[in-house]
Amino acid sequence: MPEKKKKYVEYGCCCGSSCGRVGGPEGITGCRFSLSPMSDAYVDIILEAVRQADVSKVYSLTDELSTVYRGRRQHVLDALKACFTGAYREGVHMVLEATLSKGCPGDTEGESYLAADDVLQNEPRIRDVHFPVTSKISLYPMGMEDYMPHIAAVVNRAVDLGIYDRSAHYVTVLKGDVQDLFSYFDWVLGYCAEHLGHAVFQVTLSVNSPSE
Amino acid sequence: MPEKKKKYVEYGCCCGSSCGRVGGPEGITGCRFSLSPMSDAYVDIILEAVRQADVSKVYSLTDELSTVYRGRRQHVLDALKACFTGAYREGVHMVLEATLSKGCPGDTEGESYLAADDVLQNEPRIRDVHFPVTSKISLYPMGMEDYMPHIAAVVNRAVDLGIYDRSAHYVTVLKGDVQDLFSYFDWVLGYCAEHLGHAVFQVTLSVNSPSE
Repeated sequence: MPEKKKKYVEYGCCCGSSCGRVGGPEGITGCRFSLSPMSDAYVDIILEAVRQADVSKVYSLTDELSTVYRGRRQHVLDALKACFTGAYREGVHMVLEATLSKGCPGDTEGESYLAADDVLQNEPRIRDVHFPVTSKISLYPMGMEDYMPHIAAVVNRAVDLGIYDRSAHYVTVLKGDVQDLFSYFDWVLGYCAEHLGHAVFQVTLSVNSPSE
Repeated sequence: MPEKKKKYVEYGCCCGSSCGRVGGPEGITGCRFSLSPMSDAYVDIILEAVRQADVSKVYSLTDELSTVYRGRRQHVLDALKACFTGAYREGVHMVLEATLSKGCPGDTEGESYLAADDVLQNEPRIRDVHFPVTSKISLYPMGMEDYMPHIAAVVNRAVDLGIYDRSAHYVTVLKGDVQDLFSYFDWVLGYCAEHLGHAVFQVTLSVNSPSE
């Protein structure tokens, strides 16, 4: 009888591109990310970065593994860029790993702050911050058989922007200024909203690596 | 004319579950991972962890962002577990982020070491290593419309094993001993090989978090 006491999950079925767009094409963008400053001072760096980001226009929750932002695309990316630039320390190797999601069929309309206006909370004070970033990205268009052309379109946009460094096993490597990379991420999420139902965009950002 | 000089990528089309199984169901398993020890001694910790892992039965390449292992499933996981346990330091918060891939249609048969025998290179010296790990996982079954039941099957296996902690936005959180988590990851990749064409299994492992 112990079997019956287990709380199994049930996700039901997914109907690909026709469902999952909670709130429509301009609906919920979600982001779960972790900051890893490779320094004895990592606790202070992470907490300060999370605290100084203005998250008044996104749903925000930090747990023992990561932080989640949910809301309109521009506000999620604005908060994420504020957190990342706020965690930057001269000479400190730091990695941000982020899962950006659009149209997840398991999603709900709750915890999303979709009513926020267009005014960005953090951009005015961070738009002049510049430092070089090495990034790896992977796009996962879900629920469709022919997904590789979408991946190619997203990678080729990076080629056009001059931030494409190379293709490698399982990822594409980008190099560029922090502002250019976040502009590109905004474009990618716009592409996903327009062309895909459910898509996951996995991103890693690295600064001050001694391997460079 | 500058347009023509750009080196665009071409990934062609993907035919879902019928292609992409390079080397068959027991073909190439790939893993790209990054270690982030949050300590001033991170360089030594990472380099020592990478060096002490016996990678003689996998293809291995470390670049400025991450390390790639490719080969038979058991050897890729054996090398990954050796690297992770080798990077563990009492009291040091450390995160491993890994992308595990099976059947990528962009894959090639090169760089894979599929001819290796069954004998695990690292397991005898690491099988008695125990420490608690908090993990978040996400499974992305590619090229199929009805992918949610596969995600549920994989999450419910974690429920059966007693390592399921909770579902959260975009991930499932697991908690357990390092040996139990890696045994589960082996089961998940076996499930992918049996039931899915191309699948990506994104994993984060965290130890010694002060937030616990």
